[in-house]
This record gives sequence, C-alpha cells and structure tokens, in this order.
Amino acid sequence: MSKILVLNGPNLNLLGTRQPEVYGHVTLKMIEDACTRHGAARGLEVTCLQTNHEGALIDAIHKARGTQDGIVLNAGAYTHTSVALMDAISSAQVPVVEVHLSNIHAREAFRHKSFIAPVAIGQICGFGARGYIMALDAIAAYLEGETLG
Amino acid sequence: MSKILVLNGPNLNLLGTRQPEVYGHVTLKMIEDACTRHGAARGLEVTCLQTNHEGALIDAIHKARGTQDGIVLNAGAYTHTSVALMDAISSAQVPVVEVHLSNIHAREAFRHKSFIAPVAIGQICGFGARGYIMALDAIAAYLEGETLG
Amino acid sequence: MSKILVLNGPNLNLLGTRQPEVYGHVTLKMIEDACTRHGAARGLEVTCLQTNHEGALIDAIHKARGTQDGIVLNAGAYTHTSVALMDAISSAQVPVVEVHLSNIHAREAFRHKSFIAPVAIGQICGFGARGYIMALDAIAAYLEGETLG
Amino acid sequence: MSKILVLNGPNLNLLGTRQPEVYGHVTLKMIEDACTRHGAARGLEVTCLQTNHEGALIDAIHKARGTQDGIVLNAGAYTHTSVALMDAISSAQVPVVEVHLSNIHAREAFRHKSFIAPVAIGQICGFGARGYIMALDAIAAYLEGETLG
Amino acid sequence: MSKILVLNGPNLNLLGTRQPEVYGHVTLKMIEDACTRHGAARGLEVTCLQTNHEGALIDAIHKARGTQDGIVLNAGAYTHTSVALMDAISSAQVPVVEVHLSNIHAREAFRHKSFIAPVAIGQICGFGARGYIMALDAIAAYLEGETLG
Amino acid sequence: MSKILVLNGPNLNLLGTRQPEVYGHVTLKMIEDACTRHGAARGLEVTCLQTNHEGALIDAIHKARGTQDGIVLNAGAYTHTSVALMDAISSAQVPVVEVHLSNIHAREAFRHKSFIAPVAIGQICGFGARGYIMALDAIAAYLEGETLG
Amino acid sequence: MSKILVLNGPNLNLLGTRQPEVYGHVTLKMIEDACTRHGAARGLEVTCLQTNHEGALIDAIHKARGTQDGIVLNAGAYTHTSVALMDAISSAQVPVVEVHLSNIHAREAFRHKSFIAPVAIGQICGFGARGYIMALDAIAAYLEGETLG
Amino acid sequence: MSKILVLNGPNLNLLGTRQPEVYGHVTLKMIEDACTRHGAARGLEVTCLQTNHEGALIDAIHKARGTQDGIVLNAGAYTHTSVALMDAISSAQVPVVEVHLSNIHAREAFRHKSFIAPVAIGQICGFGARGYIMALDAIAAYLEGETLG
Amino acid sequence: MSKILVLNGPNLNLLGTRQPEVYGHVTLKMIEDACTRHGAARGLEVTCLQTNHEGALIDAIHKARGTQDGIVLNAGAYTHTSVALMDAISSAQVPVVEVHLSNIHAREAFRHKSFIAPVAIGQICGFGARGYIMALDAIAAYLEGETLG
Amino acid sequence: MSKILVLNGPNLNLLGTRQPEVYGHVTLKMIEDACTRHGAARGLEVTCLQTNHEGALIDAIHKARGTQDGIVLNAGAYTHTSVALMDAISSAQVPVVEVHLSNIHAREAFRHKSFIAPVAIGQICGFGARGYIMALDAIAAYLEGETLG
Amino acid sequence: MSKILVLNGPNLNLLGTRQPEVYGHVTLKMIEDACTRHGAARGLEVTCLQTNHEGALIDAIHKARGTQDGIVLNAGAYTHTSVALMDAISSAQVPVVEVHLSNIHAREAFRHKSFIAPVAIGQICGFGARGYIMALDAIAAYLEGETLG
Amino acid sequence: MSKILVLNGPNLNLLGTRQPEVYGHVTLKMIEDACTRHGAARGLEVTCLQTNHEGALIDAIHKARGTQDGIVLNAGAYTHTSVALMDAISSAQVPVVEVHLSNIHAREAFRHKSFIAPVAIGQICGFGARGYIMALDAIAAYLEGETLG
Repeated sequence: MSKILVLNGPNLNLLGTRQPEVYGHVTLKMIEDACTRHGAARGLEVTCLQTNHEGALIDAIHKARGTQDGIVLNAGAYTHTSVALMDAISSAQVPVVEVHLSNIHAREAFRHKSFIAPVAIGQICGFGARGYIMALDAIAAYLEGETLG
Repeated sequence: MSKILVLNGPNLNLLGTRQPEVYGHVTLKMIEDACTRHGAARGLEVTCLQTNHEGALIDAIHKARGTQDGIVLNAGAYTHTSVALMDAISSAQVPVVEVHLSNIHAREAFRHKSFIAPVAIGQICGFGARGYIMALDAIAAYLEGETLG
Repeated sequence: MSKILVLNGPNLNLLGTRQPEVYGHVTLKMIEDACTRHGAARGLEVTCLQTNHEGALIDAIHKARGTQDGIVLNAGAYTHTSVALMDAISSAQVPVVEVHLSNIHAREAFRHKSFIAPVAIGQICGFGARGYIMALDAIAAYLEGETLG
Repeated sequence: MSKILVLNGPNLNLLGTRQPEVYGHVTLKMIEDACTRHGAARGLEVTCLQTNHEGALIDAIHKARGTQDGIVLNAGAYTHTSVALMDAISSAQVPVVEVHLSNIHAREAFRHKSFIAPVAIGQICGFGARGYIMALDAIAAYLEGETLG
Repeated sequence: MSKILVLNGPNLNLLGTRQPEVYGHVTLKMIEDACTRHGAARGLEVTCLQTNHEGALIDAIHKARGTQDGIVLNAGAYTHTSVALMDAISSAQVPVVEVHLSNIHAREAFRHKSFIAPVAIGQICGFGARGYIMALDAIAAYLEGETLG
Repeated sequence: MSKILVLNGPNLNLLGTRQPEVYGHVTLKMIEDACTRHGAARGLEVTCLQTNHEGALIDAIHKARGTQDGIVLNAGAYTHTSVALMDAISSAQVPVVEVHLSNIHAREAFRHKSFIAPVAIGQICGFGARGYIMALDAIAAYLEGETLG
Repeated sequence: MSKILVLNGPNLNLLGTRQPEVYGHVTLKMIEDACTRHGAARGLEVTCLQTNHEGALIDAIHKARGTQDGIVLNAGAYTHTSVALMDAISSAQVPVVEVHLSNIHAREAFRHKSFIAPVAIGQICGFGARGYIMALDAIAAYLEGETLG
Repeated sequence: MSKILVLNGPNLNLLGTRQPEVYGHVTLKMIEDACTRHGAARGLEVTCLQTNHEGALIDAIHKARGTQDGIVLNAGAYTHTSVALMDAISSAQVPVVEVHLSNIHAREAFRHKSFIAPVAIGQICGFGARGYIMALDAIAAYLEGETLG
Repeated sequence: MSKILVLNGPNLNLLGTRQPEVYGHVTLKMIEDACTRHGAARGLEVTCLQTNHEGALIDAIHKARGTQDGIVLNAGAYTHTSVALMDAISSAQVPVVEVHLSNIHAREAFRHKSFIAPVAIGQICGFGARGYIMALDAIAAYLEGETLG
Repeated sequence: MSKILVLNGPNLNLLGTRQPEVYGHVTLKMIEDACTRHGAARGLEVTCLQTNHEGALIDAIHKARGTQDGIVLNAGAYTHTSVALMDAISSAQVPVVEVHLSNIHAREAFRHKSFIAPVAIGQICGFGARGYIMALDAIAAYLEGETLG
Repeated sequence: MSKILVLNGPNLNLLGTRQPEVYGHVTLKMIEDACTRHGAARGLEVTCLQTNHEGALIDAIHKARGTQDGIVLNAGAYTHTSVALMDAISSAQVPVVEVHLSNIHAREAFRHKSFIAPVAIGQICGFGARGYIMALDAIAAYLEGETLG
Repeated sequence: MSKILVLNGPNLNLLGTRQPEVYGHVTLKMIEDACTRHGAARGLEVTCLQTNHEGALIDAIHKARGTQDGIVLNAGAYTHTSVALMDAISSAQVPVVEVHLSNIHAREAFRHKSFIAPVAIGQICGFGARGYIMALDAIAAYLEGETLG
C-alpha cells in the first residue's frame, strides 16, 4: 500500500472558511478528508499536513524521504519564490505532483513561474479542490507505472 | 450525454511511431482510442482530431461551438506562440482543458508561456498519455459542476 | 475603377453571430456588404475574403499583386505574431491599410505590437465595424493622391 | 450641433512652412481650416488650438469638459511620454480620437508607445493631414452612435 | 474600541540597540510602547508582535481575522519578496497600513517593489519611528470613515 | 512659525468636481482649506498652489527656497516622468514630503516609479485627502526634530 | 543515391518575378532547377517544394521521414517564430541544413533568432541563390561523412 | 556675423547662487556674460535664454529658425525625457551643440540617455561652465566649415 | 580565542546521507566535526548550527551579535532570494564569510545572484566540504588582520 | 588570380591536437593546408594566419586592405564581443565571409550574437572544417559575381 | 610645461587614408601633427600613440602615470566593451578627456555606452578631428584650474 | 611535485605601488613571492605571470597545457567580458581556480558576471592578497583529491 503525503503551504488553511458565496464551501479539512477517503478506496495511505512556514515545508519534504512514496504538493505562494523548496524536492527524491486550485497561468505574471515544476513529475492547476484527487490518481498511476487509463 | 472534442496540434501525429525505446509505444491512435473508450464508459461522446495547421485548429474550435460541450486541447508548439488560438477559444466559448504530455514548465523557457492558459479552465502537464484521460475526467466534472471527487 | 481587397484574418468569421448583447449584431457578412456598397458608391470594386489560415492570408496577398489596387487588412491576432505576413506585404507591393475593430493599444501589451504597421500606409483602430469604411476611404484617397478632404 | 476641439501638440505649428518639396505644402492653418469647413458641412462646430506646452494641453482638455462634445487630439511627441495627458483625458471624460500624421508604429520603437491610446476611443495614424478629417468623421459617428457607414 | 495589531517583521527587533550615534536611541520597545499609549489616548486597543519568521507573520495575519480591526504592518525585507504575505493579507481581509522606517523608494531598486502595497490601504515610509503613529492614526481614520482631518 | 507650501500638480484641480458618487465630494479647495486650518491650529503658515505645468512646478519649488520651510508635494503624473522635478527639489534644498491620494504602488506598473522619492523625506500614499494632513504633520515633526509622537 | 528535399517557406515563390533591377532575375524555378541539375551531377535525387503554410511545411517534414535522406530548408519568416517547425525537425530525425538568401544576422533584430538552428546541422546565409547549392553540397558531405573537401 | 542662441533649461537658473563651497561661484549670469564676451571677441552675436518650461524651450527653438545660425543647448533634465525637444530640433533645422556641466555618462543610468544627441552635431559634457565656451567655438567652427584647429 | 559560528541553511542537513556514489560520503556531521577540530587546532571555538527556516537563520545571526566573532555562512538557496538575511547580517555587524559547496556561478542563472555577498567579507564556492575549512581560515586571518599567508 | 586571407582567431590553434575521439583529428594545420590546396585548384592564392590577440586580428584585417581580395574569417569568441573587429572590417573594405566550426546558433545564447555578421557577406556555421572550403568557394563566387552554381 | 598623451585606439590608424569623398582627407598623422602644434602654441608637450591592441592601450595608460599630466583618449570601439580600460584609468590616476570623432550617442545603441566616461573628466564627441584640439584645451584648462574661458 | 601557474590579468601590475594608505603596501611582487614560498613549503612549483593583454593570457593558458598541473587565475576585468578566455580554459583542460582581490559580487552589477566561473573549479573573492594562498591550497587539495581538511 503506497503512502502519500498531501502537503499544503501558506494560506491554504483559510480555504472555504469565509466568503462562501465567492470561494465556495470547500474547506481544507474537506479536501484532506476527501483525499484520505479517495486514497483508501484506491489503496493509498494518505497523510495530510498544512503549514504557513517555508522551513516547515522543507522539513516535511525531508521527513518524507524513506517514509512516503509520493507527495501531492500545493506550495501556495512559495511556488513562485522558493528555490529552497525546489532544492528540498530534488534532495529528497520522493516523486512530487504539483497542484494549484486556480489556473496560475491565467493570473498575474509572477504566478506563472514555478520553482516546483522543474523537479516535479507534472502540474495540475485550475480544477479547484478536485485537482487534489486528480493528483492522487496521477501519483498512484506513476507509482504503478501505468501510462494510459 | 456530453460531447467532447479531443483536439491535437502539430507533431502529435508522430507520437509513438518511432524510437519506442525512448518515447514508448503509445501512439496517437492508442490515445484517441483510450479517450473514446474512457469517454464511453463515463458517458461522454468523444470525437478526435489532429492537425499540424494552426488555421485548422482554429476552424475546429469554431466548429465545436454549438456542437461540442467541451474540448481537451493539446495545441503542441502553437501553445507558446499562437494569439490566434487564444482568441479562437475565447470567441468559441466552449470550455477547454489544456493538456501537455511533458511538463512544459520543466523545459526550455519559451515553453513556459501558454497563450491557451488564460482562456482555459485548467492545465494538466507532465503525465504523458494519461493526461488526456485526466483531462476528460476534469472536463466531465466541470460540466457536471462537481467540485470534489 | 480601383479594385480593393477587404481581407480578414483569424476569428473574424465569428463576428456578430453570438452574444449580440455584448458585441452587437454586426456580422462579418454585414461589414463585407457595407464595404461593397460603400465601395460601389465611391467607384471602388470591392472583393472580400476571410480565412483563419496564416498561409492563406499570404496566398491572398500574393494573388492581389497585379489584380488589386489596394488591400484593407484586418489580420486579427496574426498582426502581433506574423513576420511572414509582413514579408508578404512588402513583397507584394500592393498598398495596405491596417484596420482593427478594437483599440489594440488599449488592450494587453502583446497586442500593441504590429508586424503589419511597418509595411502599411497607416493604421485605424478602435472604431469597430466603421473602421473598414474609413479604411476604404483612406486607401481610395491614397490612390487618388488626395491629401486633404 | 456637436462641438469638437481639434487640439494639436508640440511642433505641429511648424507643419508645411518649410521644405515643401519634402513635407508638402499643407500647413497647420490649412488643416484647421479644412477641419472647420468639413465640420460645418457635417454639422459640427469645430474649434482649433495648438500649443507646444504639455501643461497648456492639459488645461485645454480640462476646459473642454462641459464645453466640447469631443476632441480630435494629435499630442505629438507628448503622446509617448505624458502620463499627465492620459490622466487629463480620463479626468475630463470627453471622448477623444487620437490622430497622428505619420504611421508611428512604423517609426522608432519609442514612438510605438501611446499614453493616449488607453483613454481614447481609437487611433488613426499614417494618413497625413487627411487623418484629421477621418477623425472628425469618426468622432461624429461615435457621438451619433452610428456603427456602420 | 477598535483593536489594532502592530506587526513587525525581520530585523526590526534590533532597532535602536546599537550604534545609537547612527540609528538613534529609539528601540522597538519604545515604538511599541508609544503605539500602545497613542492608541489608548485615541481609543484604540493596540497589540504588538515582532518576528523574523515569514510563516509566523502569516500566522499572525490569519489570527488577526475576526480578532483585530486593523493591522499596522512593517514587513521589513519580506515586503519585497513575499507573495505569501500578499496572499495572507488578501485572504485575511483585515485592513492593513504599510509602514517603513526609511524611504524605501530612495534606496536600492529591489526595495522599491512592495508585494504588500497591492493589498494595503496605503503606504507610509521615510518618517522613521513616527511613521507608526501616523499609521495608527490613518487606520483609525479609515475605520471611522473619516476622509479629511 | 514655520511656512509650508502645499503644491499640487496636474489634474488635481479637477478633484471632487465631478462624479461625486465615485470620487467623493472632496474638492481641491476643500483640501487646501483643511490644510490651512490644520496648519494654523498647529502653528504652520500654509500656502497653496496648483498648476498643470511642469515648468510652473519647478518655478514654485525654486521660489520656495528661502521663503518656505517645507513643501507638501503631490506632483501627480509628473511624479513618474519628471527628472526635472527631482533636480529642482535637490537644487532648492527645501524639505519635501511626497503625497498621493491613491496607493500608487497598487496601480499600473508605470506609477510605481517616483522621481520625487529619492529627494524627499518620505512618501504617504493611499489615504486620500487625509494624506495631506498627515504630510503637514510629518513635515512639522521633521522641522521640530521630533521622532516619536 | 541520396534523396534530398529542397523545402522553401513563405514568400519565396515570389522570388525573381518582379523588380529584377533590385532582386535580380533568379526565380524560385531557376533555383529549384539548378538544385536538381547540381544534385543529379553529384548523385543526389532532389525534390523541391514550396508553400506559404506553416502546417504544410510541418507535413512535408514529417513525410520526409523515411523517404528523404536530408532536407535543405529555407523556412523564410517562420524561421524566427515557429516552435512547431523546430519540433517537427527534431521529431522527423532527417538531417536539415538551414539556408537563407540574405544575411539574417545583418538585418532587424527579430531576424537574428532562428528556431531552426538548434535542430539543424548548420546554417548558410547571405549568399543568395548560391546558398542552396552550398547547402546541397554540405548535406551530401554530411551524409558521406566527409569532413574536409 | 553669425548669431548664436545660448539656451538653458530647467534648474540652471539656480546655478552658483548657493553652496558656493560645493558648486563654485559661477552663476548662470556669469556664464551668459562670458558667452557674450567670448562670442563678441570671436565675431558671434550671442543671445541668452533660460527657462524651466519644456514648452518654452520648444518655442525658443522654433523661433530660432531663420533668426539664429546655431544653438548651444543645455536642456538640463529634459535631455533625458523629452521626445518633443528632439522633434523641435529636427523640425527647426538650426544646428545644435549639446552641452552639460557634469559628465552625464558618469552619473545615474537614466542620465546616460540623451534625446538631444541624435539631432545634435555633437556633445560636450563634464567640463563645467567652460563647456559653454567650448560649445560656442565648436558651433562657430562648424558654421565656418573648419575641421581642424 | 575567537568564537566562530558555522551556520548552514536549507537542505544541507541531507548532505552525504544518500547517493554516496554521486555526492560522496561527507555528511554535515563530518563537516561540522572537521570545522570544530580544525578550529580547535587553530585556536577558534567553533559552534555549528543548521536549520531549514529563514527566520531561524536570522535569529541565529542576531544572537551571534556580541557572542560570536565571526560567521561562516552557507545560506543554501536562501542566498539567492533572501533580502531579510542580507539585512540581518548588516544589522548584526558580525563579519561573515560566504561559502557554497558547488560553484554557484557555473549553475543556473538564478543561482549567480547572492544577497549575502554585498554584506560579506568574501565568497568561497566550488570547493565542496573543504570550502568550510578555507572559510574558517579566512575569517581567522581577517580577525587577526593578516593579509598575506 | 584572387588572393584570399584565411584568418583564425582565439583558441583555434588548439584544434585537433587533443581528445581526437571527441573533436576528431583535423588540426588547424590540416585545415590551412586544405584551404591552400583547394584555393590553388580553384585559382585562389590563399594565405593563412592564426592569432589569439584581438589587436593582431585587427592589424591583419587592416593589412589585407589593398593586398587581399577577400577574407575567410573565423574570429572565434571575439565574434560575440568585439565591436573593434566589426569596425576594422567596415574600415578595411575587404569582403569577408564569416565561418564557424560549430553551429553557434545552437549553443549558449551569448554565442548567437555576431558583431561580424553586419559587415560580412554571409555566414557559414556548423559544418566543421568543411566550412572553410565552403567559405573559400563562396568568396570566390562573390568575387566572380556568380550567383548560381 | 604640462605633458599630454594623445592616445588613439583601434582602427583610428586608417583615418583619412581612403574614401576621402566620404570621410574627408584628415589622416591620423594630420590630427597628431595639429595636436602637437596646438599643444606647443599653448605650452603643452604632446606625445601621440595609436594601437589596435587593448592591452597596449592599458600599458600606455599605466606608463603615463608619473610621466604625463593628462591623456586625451579616443579608445575607439574599446570604449564600449572594455572594463579593463576603465580600471586602467582609475588605477593610473592621470586625468583623462574622452574624445570621439562621431557623435556616438546618435549611432547604434551599443555605442551609447562608455566604460571610459565614469573615470574621465568629460566627453567630447561629434566634432570630428577638431574634437582633439578641444580636448587638449579642456585638459589644459583642467590642469590650470580654469573654469570659465 | 605539482606545477602551478599563478596568472594575473590587466592592471594587477599596479597593485600596491601607489596610495598605500588606501590599497595597502602589498605589491604584485610580494604576492608572487608569497605564492612561490607557500608553494615550495607545500610541495608546489609555482610560476608567476602577469599581462595586460587578453591574447597573452590565452597564450599562457594554452602553454600551460601539458606543462602545468593547475592555474590560479585572476583575470581582472577580462573576467567579466572575455568569452575567449572561457574557451581557452575549456580547451586547455588544466584545472583553474578563480581568484579576485575584492568581493566582485559586492561591486557594480557588471562585475558580478564571470565568464571564468563556468569553466573553473571554484571561485575565491574578497580576501585580498590572501586569496592567492587560499587558491594555491585549494588547487593542491583538488589535485590530491582531498575533500576535507
């Protein structure tokens, strides 16, 4: 049974707790629960972690080495600025799938740049909370060597 | 039953027909067949088209207006250069999911830019042939208004 | 009687056929008819052509050499990306007036650049469908050597 | 009867007064007279003003608020450098048509940028003195809500 | 009684504790005390916090949601690099006034950029320790809807 | 009794005289009166001047040398383009506080640059008309050598 | 006997058919004939193709795989803009020699960039029609593994 | 007897009137007197003018056409920003020698750019007040067709 | 006996613990031990610290003020992005020697920039683990005022 | 009999003398001999020179004026940095053909720029040692006015 | 009697020896003779040197330290590329006046940059051969502390 | 006994011979002697060379191939501009340690770029004359395969 870390970065803890008419009612808790359930159904043991600290993200990635089989990572705004996260991923050698709630390539220019992408398997963005489920499936398929559904 | 166009751009016709030891044995035909099968299983009527001509891609997107419910689009290299494709999508008002076989954000800088992204729902890249299946699911979920798997 | 080609590029075929509350009810057909009528009244023989293919625009410009006295050109999005169109115009040596429905200089930065401008007599933009009639008059005046109305 | 201000900026006072073999014999006086005549024929009351002072152009635009129905503006070189003119136009809320004698997009790169464009209806350039008459017609059509000749 | 958080970022803890002949004798403690006193006199309940950790600044801004009415923020060097802080502020929806001891626009070019500014009410810089008092007054006036002293 | 010049640049004369539902009812006259009153209460002799002419702003700054103790300057759009104003301030050696009604760092990129900042004590922006009162207080404190309220 | 495709892109069909006093009398037909003759003399079977369509160039390159031993390619203006052509060449794996009539590096800056170069053996430019013959010889030598004449 | 206009732009009126220990005691009056005397000795009729207004500089250059044989121009900070001055000089067709007190190429990067240079005979900078005398001699030599002293 | 802090930033804790065939067997522990031993032999009291948190690095530098005589700093990826670290060093006024295992100037362009360099004595990079010993010697020599070995 | 100088710049003397398994066995001596032989066969008198000194290259180009009919120039790395070489060629007015062993446009970006190109007839690159022979033929054809082989 | 070195860089040896109808008949010899004569008349001992070698220019500047009182330097194209020359001048501490025959600021953009300017007294350009005489006078005045002719 | 070349570039010959109060009394001779002594003590045979000529540096690096085991290189200002030096080092395949007296990354931006770095083992800068001794030790350790002191 593969073990997957669902790792969320800065500000994602606020998800869904306010302005439901704008952002919807999906909270981080709901996403994490859905990931755990979907993982269980698919034979994945899912662990979830959120932090606003860049250093804590790095620590978590380091700790995943040898204990997790893959990471679903939404590094939030650190995606666009953190060389340290990029180095952490390439050091830890755990496969990473990058996910973003919004379509970052359709937003401000400084959000088009990802320091995660060069060290990730792939990127999924723009599909909201569903993107996490897609990422779980993608990393599972990657671990199973499956190339076509 | 939703109707989805799987639209492929330049050079994707060559997929899998040579250097199988490098690129694998998955041909465009195999991808299109998998999309059709997966669509059928999911209640989607899938039509497939590939062309190397930018103008033909635009024609196809125009034609999809009123006849298709969504488009899975891999515009190949035109992704990075074609303002005309961007305009076609925003004119046609058919929801588009952008897909790329490779992780374009991990390649040369000129491949990081997508003129498709600002007018697409979201982007999926780096998951090879599987990305098309993910895109089909994503557009189906989008059409169904489903936000969490 | 001067002969003028009214040449339209990508996506202009969709004009006016949808969202009339936003874009108005003026279709490409109506513009082309107005050009023909206005031309006839002014002693111009107007031919109209639209295509989404960059290569077909080049072909049309080449063909205009020796058969047309001037071109009213709305190259759509190819305006901003096509060096080949620029070369076609300077090769064909038929006077060109550049027209755009919207004020391209008030839109995204990548629409401020025109590869048509350096090889055109002048540019008219922001006046919607009326710009074509203004362009017809301008090219007629140019051909007649008239400098002040 | 609509009232239109034809406003000319720096160096346009020198027009046509020297090197007629190069620049032609059309003086600013001739352009202003033609505008007045053409306006009268079309039911427009045309007022003309030229100044080399950026501040005086701003003053004139301010003064046009409530006293003029539209402005035909050739801001000369201030087009490319004056944020203050841009702000004046958006403050004064009088519709402006931007005109240039030469095709500024075919000249030095620093002349491609227009601070007027984002706050103008449209731009006409490259048609010499005739561009003013075209601009008068365009602003008249705009005020009359006419979209196709 | 409005509640205001005075939040200081990296290196501001060192303020005034060394080289008094250069930087003066005003310590962070003195600034915080002055803010508390000034706030009390003006009917504001002031809480003060300083941290060198970007993540801790984000945590503090999140926590301010629902518990504070406004934030006076000197994010120090994170001002120029932290997209995550920008997102935290726009997520937390607590009004923020940005303050800097020095005139950042008169220093190195990389200090001219503020990721705080686009999500703050306004910016006060160059007035040293006094800027905090000005910021307190500004946020109080903002909360009271007062527009002119 | 210190003497302060409140100097306003281009377009600020239009303030509050139109679209009160958008920009509010505060006119330049009201701001200048509030400055005079607030100054009088605080022991400052306030003189007010507004002009749309860059040269007249320079003249005013020159004239302030030896006759004024400080300048509150809102140079409007000249802030972003005028090296001459920057030189005038550094030549005149009268302390200047820079003020802007809107948060210029939250607007278009070309408004982030200030040629005034490198020669000003500090900058206050985003607080609307109130910013002038804040600036008066700041320059008074500066002249009195006061560092903490 | 090696088989070589001489492939010409946009606007090259107009070569030599006008302004002979400027461009000379060499037509594309003459170049193609010379290539065929020179090839025959050297033991090369030369096929010639010209098109103004980017997509048709890609199609031709794809078709050359397995049917041609090398390509002499003058992609005209697409050289500077077409990522799709670059990808076509690297997909087709037929050796390509890039040729240009003029010295593109001595012209406008946007003509200095070649998307063909990174996937071509070498580049020959500035030698007019003769460059095609040089390119034929170069590709023949390449196929023969000859390194010094 | 040739007639030369010595034209000074913004802030040069303040020259030498303050901080003599820093900038020296040479005032604009002294420079203008020295120019007049030196001119007289050399057979030049020298007229002097200073203004802080860009528009007034343009007016003066226009007026010099037909009344002056040459202009010694120190446009101060407008040198770096004024396209309108550049156009004025090329319109007026009076030979201009550009002079600067300081070595502008050794100062901030934005002072390296001169819009005067492309339309001036030559540039003299860094020699302080003496540069004006050098410029007078240079323009006299230019008018006399003298190439070597 | 001088006291030196050997401070390591993000990801350096992973050093040598994996892929020994690529990165060698030198762990951070071994480097720290070597530093301590080498320091002892040279009369330096060496303290070692590693953290993945930018804020913790700043805290450590602050704490070094008054307790350490010098710092050997490998800030890892924060070198390229952290203005806050730069400010911490210039605030703390403890001499710093910057060290990197790899030759950062031979890697990706974004690693060429160092925010540490402007506030460090010097930089040593490319010599692997040995660089720390070199740095210890360099800071010792600096503290002793020795200029030539 | 035309006289041609084959001029080689920095580092080309090392050609072929080491790592034959990588760079092949072709030495500069072999290239120069092949050029001499090929020239003799074609009726060209070939002189060869190599130097690592930019100044010596300039001296050689100057000396070629009046003594040589053409130059085959491989300026090595000076190609990308030497404005002085560009000026030397345009001063000497001897026709130059630029040659490079590798395809410089397929290498690092700083090698795409050629200061030689704007003053050369044409450029040949990527064909290894054979490029010199091609260049000899090209310059011979140029001198003979031959346009098609 | 002050001693002045007139130092000329690359390609200036060719001056006036060809195309007299374009560049005139003034040779470097004539300039050097005029400098010597003019110097003698003014009490300056002038030595002249020209070289095409960057290193030889540096050597000459070094040698001038202690033996010359000033340098008139036309570094030709090295002006725009040589940091080493800049360093040589600041090391040698002999006052330098920079001279150029043409108005470099009116030519290609890469000629606007001068590495000499930041370490020179001033710059004279655009006055042809006469510039050298002007430079001699300027350096003499500088050495004599004369500020106004 | 390993043989090391200590190679110094432009302007380093002037070191220490003037302004001792600023630059200290360490001359190049003293550095070279210290290198020789330190080398002898460590079992290295040190040869020293300084030249101001880029070409001579290249010649020296070429000559070092096969005769020296390593090079300590301070290329002075050529570091920032010389692609030819970079190519020389990669051609010569002698290990190079780059050294600079000052911390080049703390100086002007154009000194941050090193063309030596991509082909050197490592870089040492900011430690003055001592950097050479450090570089000797580093290259000795490199040759001995020693990784930790």
